[in-house]
Parts: sequence; structure tokens; C-alpha cells
Amino acid sequence: MTIDEIGKRARAAAAALALVDADTKDRALNAMADSLVAKTDEILEANEGDLVRARADGVTTALIDRLTLTPKRIEDMAQGLRDLTSLPDPVGEVIESWMRPNGLQISKVRVPLGVVGIIYEARPNVTVDAAGICLKSGNASILRGSSTAISSNKLLAHIIDDAGVAAGLPKDCVQLIEDTDRESAKELMRAREYVDVLIPRGGPELIRATVEESTVPVIETGVGNCHVYVDARADLDKAVSIVVNAKTQRPGVCNAAETLLVHSQIAEEFLPRVVDVLSQSGVELRGDDQARAIRSSIGPATDEDWDTEYLDLIMTVGVVSGLDEAIARINQHGTNHTDAIATEDAAAAERFTREIDSACVMVNASTRFADGGEFGFGAEIGISNQKLHARGPMALVEMTSYKYIVRGDGQVRT
Amino acid sequence: MTIDEIGKRARAAAAALALVDADTKDRALNAMADSLVAKTDEILEANEGDLVRARADGVTTALIDRLTLTPKRIEDMAQGLRDLTSLPDPVGEVIESWMRPNGLQISKVRVPLGVVGIIYEARPNVTVDAAGICLKSGNASILRGSSTAISSNKLLAHIIDDAGVAAGLPKDCVQLIEDTDRESAKELMRAREYVDVLIPRGGPELIRATVEESTVPVIETGVGNCHVYVDARADLDKAVSIVVNAKTQRPGVCNAAETLLVHSQIAEEFLPRVVDVLSQSGVELRGDDQARAIRSSIGPATDEDWDTEYLDLIMTVGVVSGLDEAIARINQHGTNHTDAIATEDAAAAERFTREIDSACVMVNASTRFADGGEFGFGAEIGISNQKLHARGPMALVEMTSYKYIVRGDGQVRT
Repeated sequence: MTIDEIGKRARAAAAALALVDADTKDRALNAMADSLVAKTDEILEANEGDLVRARADGVTTALIDRLTLTPKRIEDMAQGLRDLTSLPDPVGEVIESWMRPNGLQISKVRVPLGVVGIIYEARPNVTVDAAGICLKSGNASILRGSSTAISSNKLLAHIIDDAGVAAGLPKDCVQLIEDTDRESAKELMRAREYVDVLIPRGGPELIRATVEESTVPVIETGVGNCHVYVDARADLDKAVSIVVNAKTQRPGVCNAAETLLVHSQIAEEFLPRVVDVLSQSGVELRGDDQARAIRSSIGPATDEDWDTEYLDLIMTVGVVSGLDEAIARINQHGTNHTDAIATEDAAAAERFTREIDSACVMVNASTRFADGGEFGFGAEIGISNQKLHARGPMALVEMTSYKYIVRGDGQVRT
Repeated sequence: MTIDEIGKRARAAAAALALVDADTKDRALNAMADSLVAKTDEILEANEGDLVRARADGVTTALIDRLTLTPKRIEDMAQGLRDLTSLPDPVGEVIESWMRPNGLQISKVRVPLGVVGIIYEARPNVTVDAAGICLKSGNASILRGSSTAISSNKLLAHIIDDAGVAAGLPKDCVQLIEDTDRESAKELMRAREYVDVLIPRGGPELIRATVEESTVPVIETGVGNCHVYVDARADLDKAVSIVVNAKTQRPGVCNAAETLLVHSQIAEEFLPRVVDVLSQSGVELRGDDQARAIRSSIGPATDEDWDTEYLDLIMTVGVVSGLDEAIARINQHGTNHTDAIATEDAAAAERFTREIDSACVMVNASTRFADGGEFGFGAEIGISNQKLHARGPMALVEMTSYKYIVRGDGQVRT
């Protein structure tokens, strides 16, 4: 199918899906979950096809891991869909309503975005997770995964769309673009007539290309050069555990910390302590001259290091003269994603939260809490790096828009 | 100055402006208003320069009108700034806050967008209006007006930025790009590093170009192919006055109606009545065969007419078989801006408001009410045609984003 055909079908599906009640959507999500589990063997077989090709192409072990489905991972995908049924349906919520002096009654009512495009890389579970969140929030989705996972993705998309239709949803609520050449991604990025928003999920190159080439509105996600700043008045025990957790608890994700800044007044005491624990956890440290003078095991940091999202057990370490320098450096080198301060000084914490221009600003907590699940949203489709529409963790409400309904009795404007 | 320099200055201004309190901003707005009025003669002189060039270039009378400033129009611009001071400052509002089971306290706090780019056409008042709304909502603005109004715009931007600085604002909160060739607009559209959102204000061609060429997130504004549907159970007196008001009260704006759809059951009675009044108001009518069979003074409508935003005293008229056809035609030919139904049938009104996929859906009211002022917002920077971020009339709140502030006591993720 061409993008044009897929887009037309998605538009029709979105118009119908916007009117479907919460119970029907929840029933469909449960039916999809059941169908995924029932078809575990078929899914594993399709996935094995992807894995055979991937191994023949000599892809990395990490990619093989992301691509691999197991009965447990299929059950996790199914559970993700079931979990959505316990969340409130955002569609139809009256956000505000008021009466004008001329008697007009205005209501601002939550509606789905319409058609959501998702461009993503190897993980086949994104097919199910993204489609589920889109469905629950009343949106039709057009999914464009990578060629590596195409056999798994095709089957998963068919299973959930079929189960949805059987449970009473309009057809084509979930469509996968089966053509995985670059041209198909570009066409999706320019299908402004059919797609209301495009969310790229993957590495920096994918996100950059989507932002550059799209005419469809894009929500930029996920690049996190996150900082932890340890202030002069930090509780050093807390600070050590926050830094170590932020760096090592799951280093490959966007809310892991990449840079540590330490106030010069406590650097002599704090740096040796934190470096020891980080080193024991296998973290390679790269620092500025002041940090290296305190701990010689810290290697030299290049200019580039301060701007790098390692997504790995590497951390850049700098000594700063105080809060002003910390804030300036974070706003300069950070990616406006998530940054943390460790301090017992309420005034310093207040300035940090006001002046750091990031989606999530943490006080005495690990950067790893910047997450839809940890925020209590019950779901997450990504973490927005931009200010337009949604910022930080995005869940169901962030996948909606609104309309104004104006009720009158013949009013005209004079 | 290059866009790069302007962008860097705007970033610095935005960081400082985000921290300025409401009183200082309001004082600055009043100072700007005073300064505009005090410099009326200078402004008129600069404007005369633009007008001389425009006349020499043989531009249309309508454009000359839009370009012309008078003491009254300068006072109106000043009053617009003063009016902003009575509106609440959206910045710093705690939108939501909650405690997580692990003791983390999460607050969602309203913050400015940062740097807002405005690309606009001949009206010099946009320079002042847009800058004022951006300032009040804590945003630095980069304004890129047309060459036609460049002398007026340069002076207006300098007057308000100078008055702002004198009143305690950071410098460069308001910057005008003085270079008006196409290249400067393109550079602004791609200045993703410096600009958080771009809002085009002008004709369809300007908006199309901005959407096509920008990598900066864009809010698409203002194309309105608005419909009025007169249902079988409409009160025909109300319906006549709504149609006539929607079409003729100010035909050149985006919320004026362009298409009238009439239920076949009442077409014989209603069409002659409304056509008479519209014709007396100088409206040219173009219709389908059924409409023309009822009133021969209606000219034939081409396929293109149904998709045209005339912004003029022209209206397309169609007869439909009922609500289903009306909804389908509006969703197909409309621009998701504003559409109205005239009906006394509550069920029909309910279906219309749910199924019409437009920013503003009116029941028994003129489409002309789709307006920030008429909604009671006290200001308006444009009417969004898209679903991402803001939909419909945009005022101060729509010029903000938010950040999450997470306060803990040493929490780490397990």
C-alpha cells in the first residue's frame, strides 16, 4: 500500500475511533493482549526470521538483544496493553467551561490528536506499546519500524488490529508501513494531510532526520545529556547514592546521567568517595584539570565529552565554582531533558529548579525518575525534549488535543 | 546582524526574562505604551516612508490600508499593551502537583516557551501586538515582518525594546530581523537551536512556506474555510442572522463563513430568505444544482469553490440530504477551523459538536465568535489550525510550556 492509501485509511479510522466509548477500547485492549499471548508460537517464529537475517547481517549483540522476543517479553507486551485498561480515558474530558456575558457557553473538551505516526528502530515491542497508547487515547496509528524487525512487526500489527476489529473497533486503527526503505519514512514525514503528529523513537540520527525532513509536526524525544550537580551544602551520602544510581542503574537510557558537576568547596572530600564507588561499578571517568588533580584515576575530558550522551558506563566530571557556574554549564551543555541537584540548601534548590531550563529538574533525587511510570502516569510513549505541546514524560493526556464547543441561542457578533 | 547573533541574544534574553516578576513585566508594558504614544510623530514619519515606497510600487488599496498607521491606530496598539497588564501572568502557575508513594513530590509548573519567532505580513501593528503577548508570557520574540513595512517595524521594535530595558527588562527581549529578503525568513525557519516555536501570521502562501521549510516547530494558523450548516429543525430567523453575520460582518478574516449548507427539507423555505439578505449585502452566491433550482440568482459553483477561503463577499451554497452529509462535507472541505450548526434539535447539535473535527464548533452562534477576545482571553496571537500544542484561539497560556520539578530526600531508583 502507498502512504497515501495508508493515510486515507488512518484518517477514516481516526474519525470513527474518536467516537468509540472507553469500555469498547478497554475490551479491545484486553482482546489484543489475549491474542498476542495465544499466538506466542507464531510470533516467535516470525521473530526467528528477523533474528536469522540479523545474524547473517552481522549486527551487534546489543541489537540482537533488543530484537529478540521471548514468551516472557510477549507476556510483558500483553500486560502493557492490559495495564492501559485501568487508566482513565482522557477523551471527552471537559477541561474548562465558562459562560460569556453574551450568553455563549464555551467548553474546552479533550479530543484525540487523530492520526499519530511513530518512526522507530529495532525493538518490536514498540509496535505493541505505541499502538496501545495511541488506541487508548483514541488515536489511529501509523507505525514505521525498521527493516531488521519487519517480520515481527508485521505479525504483531496484524494481530492487534485484527483483535481490535473483532472487539468492535474500526478497522485500520493500527497500520504498519511494510515498506522499510528510506523513501517510505520520508513520505510519512511529509504526509501532513493525513498525520497529525509524528513521534520518532530511537537514536539521535533517527530523531535528527525526522526533525529535519518532516513537514508533519514532530515531537522530538529522548536525547538526554543529563547532569547531576553536587552543591557545597549537599548531604554527601545522599549525593553519592544519587550519582551512582543516575549513572549506573541503567546506563543505556535517556534519563541516565552523563555529567557530574561538583562544587569546589566539597570536591576534595566528595570526589574520591564517588569516584571509588563509580569505578567499582565499572564506570570510566573523564574530567577537567581540577577533578583530575583530586583523583588521578580520572582521565582527561575533551571538549566533545561535555556534550556527549554516552548511554554507557562513562561519565564526565567537572569541578565548578558554585551554583552560577553549574547552572550556566548545564543550560549550555545539557539537552533540556533532566538535571539534578544534590543540596540541603533550600535557596540553592529553589534557584536551580527555576533557572535550569529542562523538562525535569530533580532536587535530591536520581535523574532516573524522569519516567512516565515513575511519575505515576501508568504509561509512557516517550520523553519530549521540546517545549511545544508536551514536555518530559508523555502518557495518555499528552496524546490528546482539545476542541472548543460554543453553544448559543442565535448570537451574532456586532 | 546575522540570525545566529540575533538567536544568541534572544536565548540570553529569554533566560533572563523567564525569571522576571509579573509587576516588572506589567510596568514595562505600560512604559512601552507610553513611549509609543509619545513618539507618535516619529512613527507616522517612518510609516510615511513605507507608504511612499508602497504607492510607488503600485500595491493594492487594501494593502495600503493595512500598512497605514494613524494616531488612532498607534493609540490602539498602546492600549493593547496596557490591556495585557490586567491579565494574570501565566508563568509560575503550579498546574498540578502530587506525591508519589516513594515520597517524591512532583510539581508541574508553567514556564515560558522561551524564544518565539513570528513571521508576518504588512500590518505594522503585529510588531507591537505579538511582542506584547510574548513579553507578558515571559518569551523573547524574534520578529520578521515584510519589506513593505520595514521602516515602521524597525522604529516600533526599537521603541518597545528600549522602553522595556528602561523599565527593567533584559535587553533584546524584542528583536526585529531588519533584513527582509527571503533568505532571512528561511534562516529563521531553520534556527532550531535558538527558536522554540515559530508562528506565521499572514496569507496561505506564507503559512504554507513556513510549514514546508521550517525545522523549528511551527504553529499553523489562520486558514479558515468555515461552514454554517442549517439543519431541518433550525429556527430560520436565527439561522438567517447567523449566516449573514458569519459571512458579512467582517468578510476578510479567517473566522468568516465561506460555505453554507442547507438541509433539503427546509431549503425551499430558507434559501430564498437568506439569499435575499445576502444579496442585499452584496454577497455573490455560488451553488450546486439543487440550490440553483431554488434560487436562480445563485451562480454555478466549481469543484474548487467548495475548498476556497474567499475572504471576500462570496459564498458557496449547497443543499444536503441531512446531518450525515453535512458532517462529511465539512470534514472533507473544511480546514478544521470553525464550523457552525443552526438547529433546535439537541441530538443533532450533540452529534455535530462531537463529529465535526474543528478547533471551534458553534451551535446557534456565528462563526465570528472564534476569537481570543470573544472567548474572554483578553488577547490573541492567532488561531491555531493544528492539533499539536494549541488549537483554536491562542492567548497567553498557549504561549507557555511547563517543567516538572521533582523534590526528594535522596531517593534512588531500584
